[in-house]
Amino acid sequence: MVTVGIIGAGRIGKVHTESICNYVRNAKIKMVADPFMSEETEKWLKGMGVANTSKDYHEILNDPEIDAVLICSSTNTHSNISLEAIAAGKHVFCEKPIDHDLAKIKEVVKALEGSSIKYQVGFNRRFDHNFAAVKKAVVDGKIGETHIIKVTSRDPEPPSAEYAAVSGGMFLDMTIHDFDMVRFLAGCDAEEIYVQSAVLVDPAIGEAGDVDTAVITIKMENGAIAVIDNSRRAAYGYDQRAEVFGSKGMAATSNDTASSVVLSTQDGVTGEKPLYFFLERYMQSFATEVGCFIDAIENDTDTPLGVVDGLKPVLMGIAAKKSVEEHRPVKLSEIQY
Amino acid sequence: MVTVGIIGAGRIGKVHTESICNYVRNAKIKMVADPFMSEETEKWLKGMGVANTSKDYHEILNDPEIDAVLICSSTNTHSNISLEAIAAGKHVFCEKPIDHDLAKIKEVVKALEGSSIKYQVGFNRRFDHNFAAVKKAVVDGKIGETHIIKVTSRDPEPPSAEYAAVSGGMFLDMTIHDFDMVRFLAGCDAEEIYVQSAVLVDPAIGEAGDVDTAVITIKMENGAIAVIDNSRRAAYGYDQRAEVFGSKGMAATSNDTASSVVLSTQDGVTGEKPLYFFLERYMQSFATEVGCFIDAIENDTDTPLGVVDGLKPVLMGIAAKKSVEEHRPVKLSEIQY
Amino acid sequence: MVTVGIIGAGRIGKVHTESICNYVRNAKIKMVADPFMSEETEKWLKGMGVANTSKDYHEILNDPEIDAVLICSSTNTHSNISLEAIAAGKHVFCEKPIDHDLAKIKEVVKALEGSSIKYQVGFNRRFDHNFAAVKKAVVDGKIGETHIIKVTSRDPEPPSAEYAAVSGGMFLDMTIHDFDMVRFLAGCDAEEIYVQSAVLVDPAIGEAGDVDTAVITIKMENGAIAVIDNSRRAAYGYDQRAEVFGSKGMAATSNDTASSVVLSTQDGVTGEKPLYFFLERYMQSFATEVGCFIDAIENDTDTPLGVVDGLKPVLMGIAAKKSVEEHRPVKLSEIQY
Amino acid sequence: MVTVGIIGAGRIGKVHTESICNYVRNAKIKMVADPFMSEETEKWLKGMGVANTSKDYHEILNDPEIDAVLICSSTNTHSNISLEAIAAGKHVFCEKPIDHDLAKIKEVVKALEGSSIKYQVGFNRRFDHNFAAVKKAVVDGKIGETHIIKVTSRDPEPPSAEYAAVSGGMFLDMTIHDFDMVRFLAGCDAEEIYVQSAVLVDPAIGEAGDVDTAVITIKMENGAIAVIDNSRRAAYGYDQRAEVFGSKGMAATSNDTASSVVLSTQDGVTGEKPLYFFLERYMQSFATEVGCFIDAIENDTDTPLGVVDGLKPVLMGIAAKKSVEEHRPVKLSEIQY
Repeated sequence: MVTVGIIGAGRIGKVHTESICNYVRNAKIKMVADPFMSEETEKWLKGMGVANTSKDYHEILNDPEIDAVLICSSTNTHSNISLEAIAAGKHVFCEKPIDHDLAKIKEVVKALEGSSIKYQVGFNRRFDHNFAAVKKAVVDGKIGETHIIKVTSRDPEPPSAEYAAVSGGMFLDMTIHDFDMVRFLAGCDAEEIYVQSAVLVDPAIGEAGDVDTAVITIKMENGAIAVIDNSRRAAYGYDQRAEVFGSKGMAATSNDTASSVVLSTQDGVTGEKPLYFFLERYMQSFATEVGCFIDAIENDTDTPLGVVDGLKPVLMGIAAKKSVEEHRPVKLSEIQY
Repeated sequence: MVTVGIIGAGRIGKVHTESICNYVRNAKIKMVADPFMSEETEKWLKGMGVANTSKDYHEILNDPEIDAVLICSSTNTHSNISLEAIAAGKHVFCEKPIDHDLAKIKEVVKALEGSSIKYQVGFNRRFDHNFAAVKKAVVDGKIGETHIIKVTSRDPEPPSAEYAAVSGGMFLDMTIHDFDMVRFLAGCDAEEIYVQSAVLVDPAIGEAGDVDTAVITIKMENGAIAVIDNSRRAAYGYDQRAEVFGSKGMAATSNDTASSVVLSTQDGVTGEKPLYFFLERYMQSFATEVGCFIDAIENDTDTPLGVVDGLKPVLMGIAAKKSVEEHRPVKLSEIQY
Repeated sequence: MVTVGIIGAGRIGKVHTESICNYVRNAKIKMVADPFMSEETEKWLKGMGVANTSKDYHEILNDPEIDAVLICSSTNTHSNISLEAIAAGKHVFCEKPIDHDLAKIKEVVKALEGSSIKYQVGFNRRFDHNFAAVKKAVVDGKIGETHIIKVTSRDPEPPSAEYAAVSGGMFLDMTIHDFDMVRFLAGCDAEEIYVQSAVLVDPAIGEAGDVDTAVITIKMENGAIAVIDNSRRAAYGYDQRAEVFGSKGMAATSNDTASSVVLSTQDGVTGEKPLYFFLERYMQSFATEVGCFIDAIENDTDTPLGVVDGLKPVLMGIAAKKSVEEHRPVKLSEIQY
Repeated sequence: MVTVGIIGAGRIGKVHTESICNYVRNAKIKMVADPFMSEETEKWLKGMGVANTSKDYHEILNDPEIDAVLICSSTNTHSNISLEAIAAGKHVFCEKPIDHDLAKIKEVVKALEGSSIKYQVGFNRRFDHNFAAVKKAVVDGKIGETHIIKVTSRDPEPPSAEYAAVSGGMFLDMTIHDFDMVRFLAGCDAEEIYVQSAVLVDPAIGEAGDVDTAVITIKMENGAIAVIDNSRRAAYGYDQRAEVFGSKGMAATSNDTASSVVLSTQDGVTGEKPLYFFLERYMQSFATEVGCFIDAIENDTDTPLGVVDGLKPVLMGIAAKKSVEEHRPVKLSEIQY
């Protein structure tokens, strides 16, 4: 039984709390900490069986009974709390991204060198039933050698202006998941990135210096070509698909829906829209990723998504930004790290 | 908060335990009773947070703190324990069927007359996301007046000979769910049933006096025609579909799969088989039905599936058997009750 | 090169004219006869390359250069013209049904006994790409032994009252195609039929003594159970599906559409309705069936659909009517022939 | 009635012959010319009703009865024969591409200036039922403003080394259709092209200086981003899909198959592969495009695909080649014309 503390009781902190309480039998939550811990949240946590709360996450780091922490706080705190947690000898599950600043990620990488601490980054989509099944088809040799990888990733609505301002921009906030997906499906790293992007959804996003629509072409180290298409707003909901094409064939996913019901009327043959909200769409993957983290601790194995897997998509995001700025393909090797 | 006791710690008893512990926030399980309670089960229950176990369900019935019981014991005990629980003033969730003996069901109906006790029968499929979405389309008027209802219900493999012997036969054991589904989708009762059946899956089933394949035509009281097709064995897994056709169109479901992955190779374009195991396929519906039961207690409303809804599919099963024996359409009014 | 004459220049006569002119390279049409031959039709025929027209089909029967005739006249003339054509030594392609009167069909059967004349009946759906592919899967052993056959056949709109009056009723006019489909897919004859029917689409149909909605259960001679569901009006168009379920699996078709385009918007994910008009839906099958007829003549082989295949669905239709009248399952052996 | 001559009796010449004979009622073929006209082809043409053949296409150009010619000869003759035909006053349907040499295309453009001659280029896919339906959805405003266009175009097998040598390379031979599709779906021209390409299918293609796999990103003049993914070999057949995503939603097509049959067995749920051969897949579009050409002549309207539409995809192909060579995004305005 692994004893965990959760740092951050916002949306994603609650998701992980629920996952552990409901599905992860070999873990128990001893404490949840959040500087803005509300009475309502405390009550909810009690109902979930979490006895202890705090406004100071150091209480978690200082508790010798706690084996592992989940860092679910705001993005700009991820790397620092990671460093503190590693120093305190805690295993760490860190929400993505570790940091937007490569130097900070580097510190975390260094801190983990030679250590027996387990570190996992929260790229949950790898654990999604659909994407995991595509990966399995690839690994099982069903599609032969990989030639083309396509990832469609479109949000149901753009972020608020406030969020966009601190998010690091679309490539580091949203596409970062797709960069990880491309690495996951290809089974190797990216070599070069080219971005064609535009502001088509909301001029305010452009005014804030970001883009909202992009097609990103990536040359992978194994020779395959990956392409991601992003939009900050799909009118029909959250569009999350992938397709891997190779010498023997293709594995492709479609979107998940609330039900399989199809209505045939004089207006057409209509099925449901994709699940709209990312927490609903990816609920299962959040539970699975945390279960894998706990299992890695229990069995003393590597986590499925280590600190380097957290670093690489950030590098890709920075390369993507550079591609937009300089309007040319950018090699990953150009990004100083 | 509703305090419940669970009678029976077999497969379905465990499913309900898990559902309540994980999803039903307004209920807690005080005790689980089973005459064959094993150490392993006790340990599992502890892990789920259930403190008390017993080999005698009377401990549950006699506990004044327990508001409601879930009867998950073997079929032949359902009606008697229902009667005892009602006498003890407990609300009752009873797994299907209440009994194969109409006289016993009648006793339960009588015991509930004029009582304020909530009684719900475990026809879980009404709560399944797909079938509930079909029902919603019907209720919302999307298909107009209902003309034809089709239910396909095929098991992935036939029951053991031992189980078949005590199950009451295919119509009372398996089709009973489809009889309920037809009533649910039609929003009314059956008037007449005709069965064309055969032994095509396993001759041993025929030797035991049962059938394993059937097409059942039902005239509903609202004039619609329903048809159920059953097989005890679909090579591709658990086939669970429904289609409602009416004056304005059709609402239809397809099977659920583990993922949406489709593999295109020189051998064809292949998706996953339907989910094989009923607990996996209907997991969500089991949680939802128990949540509805607890809500009905808390809010003092009718349960969505009362004792009469438990009775009617048994009547239909008996009419179906009579149709096979006498090789003719049988009116529900012919069945003595 | 087979020289043919076409008797009847109505809708179906024109379809066959077009098929032969466009697709059937080993046949040429020498003459088309129709008592109501219009100038417009004559002009259209000229455009198709048909030089000769007549108001009297005997001109065709008496022309020694004509090898074969296609009988596309009104239903009540099919058997008599068949008899005349056989007497004239012409090969015959006869639109379904040969007759509603079994005695008349019997005369045609007798006339063909010992003769070398090719006779084919126009159950075109056997030649449809979808249904032929289901049949192929069955014949190739892909589904093992057949257990259940399901045919959904729903028209986009009911016939006019005038047509219904002379059509012989739904079972002989519309379901007759489905009776043939069931025989085709099962590879054997029907043994017993039970009908549950209703008037739900149009009361006028009921007043005319017919039904417009039916579920028909058929026991096949090989032990399989077939079920047909019919409606005279599907709001979403022409619904034509089949499903064969057996010991090793299931082969099923879906409807054809004008394109595969799917539109995803905030209103849902919507594909096209089934092709509405039977001539559009079955265009390919009409060409294929006539090609097979011509090939049978050229190669001196049996036609794929002989006079007995024309008889059997009529027997089934009569049994179905009897089942409605007497409200019981009716054996095919009860129908005097 | 438009009288046409067909120049070239190879594969595509025969397709157009068949289309006109079978479907285009307002045209008749007077002559087919081919320097390698074989007896077999002459016989086939007779069977189709084409009386005159020649080994010299000038016979067609010099025939005053012939209104229009279809140029179906080898690619390197297209522009010269176009010029001759225009000089002879014939309307011209020219197979794609007009030429690989922009100067030659320019000559054709000039020759048509101020002339009343109808000129159409054979980008047949615009007339395909699926792609035309996507276009219609766009034009009807169903998806709002266009943001992203995706075209998947993968051949079932690579061309022979001989063909590849004279084809102009993948971008001018194969992708040229997709360049046209992108222009068609966007309703505007391309502004800039970036190609990421590779040799993954066959090293011999690389040795010949060409590529066999590519992802091509295109900035369109209306601000939309288009992306084409190409492979010379899809193991599952001819993969031809498009998707247009915009402010109000998405319109997408899937591949056409020979039937809709789906087989469910213990091995999975398997549908048919895409139609393998381009003539089979696009048969309908070939007939429709020629019909439109003839109609434009009869009604004296513009053809749907003029000489400029023939030019632009060649410009795009040349820009694509330059992007590969210089490994950077290339503006269309950089291509000298």
